[in-house]
Amino acid sequence: MDPEYVRTLQRWCFVIEEELDKVLDFWQKYSHDTEHGGFFTCLDKDGKIYDETKYVWLQARQVWMYCKLYNEVPKYANDQILQPALKGAQFLLNNCLISRDGCKRCAFSVTKGGKAIKIQRTLFSECFFVMAMSEAWRSTKEEIYQDAAVTMMMQIYHWCLVDDSALGRESLPGSVPMSSLAVPMMALCLCHQIETCAIEWSHSKATTLKDWAIGQMLNHVKRGGAKVLENISPDGKEISGSIGRVQIPGHTIECGWFLLRHAMKIGDDELAEKAIQSFISAPFEQGWDDEYGGILYFTDADGFPPTQLEWNMKLWWPHNEAMIAFLLAYVHTKKEIFIKQFDKVAQYSFEKFVDKEHGEWFGYLHQDGRISSRFKGATWKGCFHIPRSLLMCKQLLSEILNK
Amino acid sequence: MDPEYVRTLQRWCFVIEEELDKVLDFWQKYSHDTEHGGFFTCLDKDGKIYDETKYVWLQARQVWMYCKLYNEVPKYANDQILQPALKGAQFLLNNCLISRDGCKRCAFSVTKGGKAIKIQRTLFSECFFVMAMSEAWRSTKEEIYQDAAVTMMMQIYHWCLVDDSALGRESLPGSVPMSSLAVPMMALCLCHQIETCAIEWSHSKATTLKDWAIGQMLNHVKRGGAKVLENISPDGKEISGSIGRVQIPGHTIECGWFLLRHAMKIGDDELAEKAIQSFISAPFEQGWDDEYGGILYFTDADGFPPTQLEWNMKLWWPHNEAMIAFLLAYVHTKKEIFIKQFDKVAQYSFEKFVDKEHGEWFGYLHQDGRISSRFKGATWKGCFHIPRSLLMCKQLLSEILNK
Repeated sequence: MDPEYVRTLQRWCFVIEEELDKVLDFWQKYSHDTEHGGFFTCLDKDGKIYDETKYVWLQARQVWMYCKLYNEVPKYANDQILQPALKGAQFLLNNCLISRDGCKRCAFSVTKGGKAIKIQRTLFSECFFVMAMSEAWRSTKEEIYQDAAVTMMMQIYHWCLVDDSALGRESLPGSVPMSSLAVPMMALCLCHQIETCAIEWSHSKATTLKDWAIGQMLNHVKRGGAKVLENISPDGKEISGSIGRVQIPGHTIECGWFLLRHAMKIGDDELAEKAIQSFISAPFEQGWDDEYGGILYFTDADGFPPTQLEWNMKLWWPHNEAMIAFLLAYVHTKKEIFIKQFDKVAQYSFEKFVDKEHGEWFGYLHQDGRISSRFKGATWKGCFHIPRSLLMCKQLLSEILNK
Repeated sequence: MDPEYVRTLQRWCFVIEEELDKVLDFWQKYSHDTEHGGFFTCLDKDGKIYDETKYVWLQARQVWMYCKLYNEVPKYANDQILQPALKGAQFLLNNCLISRDGCKRCAFSVTKGGKAIKIQRTLFSECFFVMAMSEAWRSTKEEIYQDAAVTMMMQIYHWCLVDDSALGRESLPGSVPMSSLAVPMMALCLCHQIETCAIEWSHSKATTLKDWAIGQMLNHVKRGGAKVLENISPDGKEISGSIGRVQIPGHTIECGWFLLRHAMKIGDDELAEKAIQSFISAPFEQGWDDEYGGILYFTDADGFPPTQLEWNMKLWWPHNEAMIAFLLAYVHTKKEIFIKQFDKVAQYSFEKFVDKEHGEWFGYLHQDGRISSRFKGATWKGCFHIPRSLLMCKQLLSEILNK
């Protein structure tokens, strides 16, 4: 590797490890609900709580994040991080599961004391629940967590591969049935998670689900490999209209590193190349805003105006995902272009998102890079994307620099 | 009136009449579905259709707008505007009503051919349906329209005042029951509409509904009259958290001119003063962006960060509503401050939103006033707010200048 790049990566290694500590410090200081367990994520710039609603995706993600740090990072292998994590896991188990139509659903949002406010008609609360339970089992080996993870995994399998009508989505005469990229993406993520935690659930189901997820994700690659579409018909075709043309570059890139990680694990170079080309390089090329820098939130595959008002905002998480994706792509290919792109995204992120004054990152910028929303946490931003990215980048950078 | 203001208003009178013609021209040229009836509202900057989904609020609003112009503006009293309007009304009647739980619901969105895609769990499609049917009756005196309007009005009365469970909103243990300003606002709007069209439906229900609507709207005034909150508890109290603090200045101002119009009609000076002070002047003061100009989309009553990503965008319709509100306030009070504020909003609007090249207005600007979304129509922007505002401002300016 070019010595200049070595120095660049060494610097990032140091900065990223330091930033991970600062980010964790913010959540540990401001988010723990010591009374009920779980976490307050509606935090203002300075950490002050502006709403006490608990969003279950974020509860589960923070349990997972804390347990993962406990499990993998010696400096975090202590009760200071484990105890709030387990209190959060207990909060999920005691409050967030709701029996409905013969299933156990996970609420989307609950009151601080755990009363359900809303249930979504998608399976993502349940997916993050599995993330939390499995990682908590990995930390404690307590059966209750493994059982919860496996039970929910069986349901997710059923919803993905057999019948998702229990999720309650209405079908009207004009409804266009569609498959969204997020579902197989989460399914693959969960398969990896369950394996990492060495949880036995069903070897045949695990294989079937993983193969389905990968196949589905690849179906979203259209236009001769040039574009990944967020939504396709169940039989794998393009859908007309704005909904069929929408792209979320950050989502695509996140899929990319899930696929690449899997491809590298099983030694499938063809899949790895596909992941890099179609899911990482192309969307980055299409989604990077050459005028202002940063990754656009939504794009339209045919250049029509995206319908989302926030389409040209710069959000934190696509940048987190791109940082991971480029380092992973470098590890696999040894092509220095990926170091360059990692550096480009990391520079943008640290310059625009990081709050040097109060810590953590702003999440939402105007197209031109100025801060638009000043909160550090909300319905969709919690203790997850940033620390996950910083942790993985740190691990990848160490791996790269040690060679 | 100060002669300078007279000249200003004369100029606006001319500009606004011309702009109304240009805006109507855009919709007439690009939006009519001559095959199925109804209107395409997903129009790009240059009028090109980028999605064929039909949104029922916008279908009904365009029918209402066209019929109103036919009914009130001699230059539009012709078949060129009436025929597409009636085809749109037929499209609504034939396709958009869906029987469900013993009610007739209106779809939220349908395919271009009229197959239902989605039904909302609110009553606004039904409200705009009444607007359309009643104005179409006023144009044609055909019973089918009056019957449709009255039948739906009876249902709306029931949902507002008796039981809205048929709308299908789920109630979970942690759900916070709430009343949103939009409901009584639409109810008052409909009462006025039905009276304007001289439709008989039920004198006692009309009175009850109107009184309820006004009382409800006034309940949203909090903090000693200083702030209007979008959401309150059913028993009229503030709700904690972001949902209870959210304000939509444009919405409040729109309520303001509905209330003021009503107050002026019945000669209730106290109500008129309340409408002006709490629903027009205060929210304008709070919502006007002193740095960049324009009215903010969302604010938080206590200065916490709004949760909506689009909070600081400048949308077209709040400016349309403010223009009407200030002229109406001048007509009632004769205070020149309202001329000044009308001029301020109109100047901002014509400078920032109007597309001199392709006609009509951009709807969505960044906080700093630059265009963010380039489409002229979408799910929420159609042929309604702008022409309604231009028509009413023209009528008010004529009234003012004739005195």
